[in-house]
Amino acid sequence: MAQAVPASVTRLIDEFSRLPGIGPKTAARLTYFLLRAPDDQALGLADALHDLKERITYCSICANLTEQDPCPVCSDEKRDQGLVCVVEEPLNVIAIERTGHYRGVYHVLHGAINPIEGIGPDQLRIKELVDRVASRPVREVIIATNVSLEGDATAMYIYNKLHGAIRVTRLARGLSVGSDLEYADSLTLAGALEGRQEMQE
Amino acid sequence: MAQAVPASVTRLIDEFSRLPGIGPKTAARLTYFLLRAPDDQALGLADALHDLKERITYCSICANLTEQDPCPVCSDEKRDQGLVCVVEEPLNVIAIERTGHYRGVYHVLHGAINPIEGIGPDQLRIKELVDRVASRPVREVIIATNVSLEGDATAMYIYNKLHGAIRVTRLARGLSVGSDLEYADSLTLAGALEGRQEMQE
Repeated sequence: MAQAVPASVTRLIDEFSRLPGIGPKTAARLTYFLLRAPDDQALGLADALHDLKERITYCSICANLTEQDPCPVCSDEKRDQGLVCVVEEPLNVIAIERTGHYRGVYHVLHGAINPIEGIGPDQLRIKELVDRVASRPVREVIIATNVSLEGDATAMYIYNKLHGAIRVTRLARGLSVGSDLEYADSLTLAGALEGRQEMQE
Repeated sequence: MAQAVPASVTRLIDEFSRLPGIGPKTAARLTYFLLRAPDDQALGLADALHDLKERITYCSICANLTEQDPCPVCSDEKRDQGLVCVVEEPLNVIAIERTGHYRGVYHVLHGAINPIEGIGPDQLRIKELVDRVASRPVREVIIATNVSLEGDATAMYIYNKLHGAIRVTRLARGLSVGSDLEYADSLTLAGALEGRQEMQE
């Protein structure tokens, strides 16, 4: 089989296979797709990969990924710099921005506390958050970690570090839009009961 | 949202999204994975993409992808150069090589006849196959196009071009290993009946 597959093809298949969620078959399919595609598609992807590694850095205020420091969100005077939303990953920032309902700023932890994988508070940007709250005019911290054991442990850890000094809130728990009571898991339903809100006209 | 996502991140997400089977969410996931991975992973992928486009060419005999011309299979004297297996795509060569049961050579068509997509015989390497059979000591052509309308149309077209001049065979149709009669589709079952073989001890 080695005979029939040129080394540069095998190499690209191997590189694609190292990406998460891409097995050897998908990797081969992507490689053969790029072989048939115009040169600028493969080379465009290669350039984008170089760019990424050369240009991206972490914002010194919020630790989000950025090409300029401080990042455009932290240096935007129209955003409420006193309201800080704490998320696990840069991808979470995008999700919240997409709602179009948030005008504060962010703090990216780059992970969650996970003792099994050996990730403790020191591996996350929690110290930076505490320093930020102490040194800048922050009014409220909204904790928006994932709804998981790790996310909840991280939320609780941060709450213990900050409460008293500042208002600490977290995202509401409850039923998702379009969800059916019959199929809602009991933890979600319990959360929705506990966080029930007054009806308004 | 644009604010929160650096341009080089957006660009890589866009480039990944252009690959088949990769939507915007997977593209974002791959991009953020590479951001956290060691630099050499992203740069290794970039180099592999460059290599592919720089080194790969088509074999002048069999039209398979290769880094040297003729390709290692066509220039291997231990392989039976008189037996030519015709396949649609380079990936099909790998599938046949993987069986370990084929010692002949290949001819890659780079597609199948598909009038709906405007692919006729002239867009495929069929003329090259006919010339090859005429000018080289080819004994038998095994047609191994896919079992589909397009593959069968291509097989029939090639058969009409070559039969009389040379022995033309095609891969056997029948039940796959592990298949259950109850769930076999009727076309497969009909093919298996038609191609029934004498039992041997």
